[in-house]
Amino acid sequence: MNNLLQKPRKVYVSRKIEFNAAHRLFNPLCTEHENVEIYGKCSNINGHGHNYLLEITLSGIVDQKTGFLFDLKELKNILEEEIIGRFDHKHLNHDVPELQDCVPTTEVLAVLIWDILEQRLQTTTNNQELALHEVTIYETGKNSVRYLGE
Amino acid sequence: MNNLLQKPRKVYVSRKIEFNAAHRLFNPLCTEHENVEIYGKCSNINGHGHNYLLEITLSGIVDQKTGFLFDLKELKNILEEEIIGRFDHKHLNHDVPELQDCVPTTEVLAVLIWDILEQRLQTTTNNQELALHEVTIYETGKNSVRYLGE
Amino acid sequence: MNNLLQKPRKVYVSRKIEFNAAHRLFNPLCTEHENVEIYGKCSNINGHGHNYLLEITLSGIVDQKTGFLFDLKELKNILEEEIIGRFDHKHLNHDVPELQDCVPTTEVLAVLIWDILEQRLQTTTNNQELALHEVTIYETGKNSVRYLGE
Amino acid sequence: MNNLLQKPRKVYVSRKIEFNAAHRLFNPLCTEHENVEIYGKCSNINGHGHNYLLEITLSGIVDQKTGFLFDLKELKNILEEEIIGRFDHKHLNHDVPELQDCVPTTEVLAVLIWDILEQRLQTTTNNQELALHEVTIYETGKNSVRYLGE
Amino acid sequence: MNNLLQKPRKVYVSRKIEFNAAHRLFNPLCTEHENVEIYGKCSNINGHGHNYLLEITLSGIVDQKTGFLFDLKELKNILEEEIIGRFDHKHLNHDVPELQDCVPTTEVLAVLIWDILEQRLQTTTNNQELALHEVTIYETGKNSVRYLGE
Amino acid sequence: MNNLLQKPRKVYVSRKIEFNAAHRLFNPLCTEHENVEIYGKCSNINGHGHNYLLEITLSGIVDQKTGFLFDLKELKNILEEEIIGRFDHKHLNHDVPELQDCVPTTEVLAVLIWDILEQRLQTTTNNQELALHEVTIYETGKNSVRYLGE
Repeated sequence: MNNLLQKPRKVYVSRKIEFNAAHRLFNPLCTEHENVEIYGKCSNINGHGHNYLLEITLSGIVDQKTGFLFDLKELKNILEEEIIGRFDHKHLNHDVPELQDCVPTTEVLAVLIWDILEQRLQTTTNNQELALHEVTIYETGKNSVRYLGE
Repeated sequence: MNNLLQKPRKVYVSRKIEFNAAHRLFNPLCTEHENVEIYGKCSNINGHGHNYLLEITLSGIVDQKTGFLFDLKELKNILEEEIIGRFDHKHLNHDVPELQDCVPTTEVLAVLIWDILEQRLQTTTNNQELALHEVTIYETGKNSVRYLGE
Repeated sequence: MNNLLQKPRKVYVSRKIEFNAAHRLFNPLCTEHENVEIYGKCSNINGHGHNYLLEITLSGIVDQKTGFLFDLKELKNILEEEIIGRFDHKHLNHDVPELQDCVPTTEVLAVLIWDILEQRLQTTTNNQELALHEVTIYETGKNSVRYLGE
Repeated sequence: MNNLLQKPRKVYVSRKIEFNAAHRLFNPLCTEHENVEIYGKCSNINGHGHNYLLEITLSGIVDQKTGFLFDLKELKNILEEEIIGRFDHKHLNHDVPELQDCVPTTEVLAVLIWDILEQRLQTTTNNQELALHEVTIYETGKNSVRYLGE
Repeated sequence: MNNLLQKPRKVYVSRKIEFNAAHRLFNPLCTEHENVEIYGKCSNINGHGHNYLLEITLSGIVDQKTGFLFDLKELKNILEEEIIGRFDHKHLNHDVPELQDCVPTTEVLAVLIWDILEQRLQTTTNNQELALHEVTIYETGKNSVRYLGE
Repeated sequence: MNNLLQKPRKVYVSRKIEFNAAHRLFNPLCTEHENVEIYGKCSNINGHGHNYLLEITLSGIVDQKTGFLFDLKELKNILEEEIIGRFDHKHLNHDVPELQDCVPTTEVLAVLIWDILEQRLQTTTNNQELALHEVTIYETGKNSVRYLGE
């Protein structure tokens, strides 16, 4: 079976999920005036929100028996626990302990999600080849941030 | 010119805009328990948020001279003032006076936006034929509400 | 609360779900030649498939207390049971009893889904105003069918 | 076969096609100054262009034998001839005779496409129930015009 | 002409096409129980299906005379023959000889399409710089697999 | 603040903008016949047009104080001046001096936009780490070209 996989094939598998959250861009170490200059209306005191679209990409060698890189049901469970449970229908500034000392920009969010998922994957799989390759977040349809662990 | 318009032609012209806002679904006249039962995680105390996509539809007879139903530059200004200025980068529960005594569901938001735009259009144009036809809001890519003034 | 709802407001609430299914367009009462003439490559003997995107629209008066037309958690459960359970990851010709004597075109599918959901909603709610308004199915990004119960 | 179709079912079938065209909004009966006031940068002398997305909707009773409203292969041919052949990779002001005495706004384009397709369908089918229901054109992702023949 | 191309410019040109196919995830070398554990409802005996969206990316130096990387009409013909002809409106398990000894996962499909197109391009062009760069398949809007020939 | 940024994090930030333009693919150094052979209907004398969707990607280290890679308000201004001002509602062959000696293919457009933005960014920022990473243009939903400055 899967004779196309007799030589190792490295693929990149991506999955998108969405979470809806509020945030406020505000650095308490800066003055009110500086915050407005840096963050504009994103620093409004009561916050605003987004439908964040997250795309996770794993890389590695396709398994000869299953034809999968990774069990998507397991990936779904991981994303449910680590991402939906932590960020969905939350206020990023108030409800996410990992962001307590951060300004929750999309850049910072991408870095945090990378750190969370990379650690989780290491404890999940013995597959030495499997790696987290990329985390991309679309804050809106126009703006996105990618982080590759560099 | 515009010989296709010699007989009156009734068209529907739609324009989409987006605003990013936070909200919390919570009815202070209900108990905490009832709120959770009705609104689930949408009632989380610090709120969450969305990229709201709004589509406004006007109806009326195409103008024989311009070939337009309505000046899109003027519509853009109206939406900038009435919608972006009021809702974008705001917390719907705290920053929008018109929603003070409301649970800011998508249904309620559609009704409010209709009321605001219908009044504004009446004071803007003498064109008896021009009418606000429909307000549609997509809270996410999956959920939307339409209101036609009924 | 919800003073915008003091007069009754009729809204249309839509929700999209997706199911992935195989089908074959083939009418056993026609000759092989006729089937190819009518259905072309859609009549290939082993079938093909689609990511069907379904949009359900309900209409009715917004509830003054909740600000909702209908409990979306309940709608989600209904769609899970009636649509996902029946059609997702199935072969429409072989696995869906209700389609046994049908050619599973998108038109027929829209009509069947209307019949299923209208009956289910009648047994679910006492709200006289609430009605199924529209069933739309996108077979591909280019082709869609709407049915309004007429 | 098709026992769901034993009672007549009225459906709406839509198909999307795209064409890429240039145009200039300019009314020769107006002064240069008036044109700029009405059309702004859309009146630039050398024209600009769009990927026009057109959605055609037909309505009628589903055929009991085929399960189709209308043969999509035939619709595809009609749209190829009447729409792609006439508008795709053309300059609407210079290359489309039917638009010679028109300002090619999206409103005017919707009306023209309705007139073309309604006449063509009348000469194509004996099905008394089949009707052109709606022509929608998206000039951009944000702006669209619908015409229903009123 | 094309003075911007006086120094060599390496670009990546992508084209998307769609094909609609049925498949079943099932490995005959595993027990029924193992298949359900690995593939869940994707192993349903009659199969299911998808609108597969395929994006092909070529890389190379832009041609100084034409301003093109590769003749898109020729690419369209190649994709029509190699992809649409082989996969569209087919059952991947039964109708595609190259997949006879494979479980037709998206990973395997990406690898197969790479192998097919790379061989075809080598026999098509003398352009030493032109290369197949990437094959991406979206099985649904949420799941995709990329293969770069590694 | 921003303790996640204590070690340097290299991110990729992308922003999409759209411009609507006309163009004609025609090389005056070739015969009429050659032009038709190379460019087909894209060489129609009066031109045609597109809604060009442009995605710009910057790369660099996230700023520890702001949590941003680059001030998006400044990026917006740059794109407004360099891209919208130059290309939007223009005819690429006639209205853009930089394209005077070019066939305005998507490949050439991607290269030109890279050259314009790379020069502009060098004069805008002292941040040694910040770099233009990628320019992608979608001419239609199906065709796109990426240029990375190679």
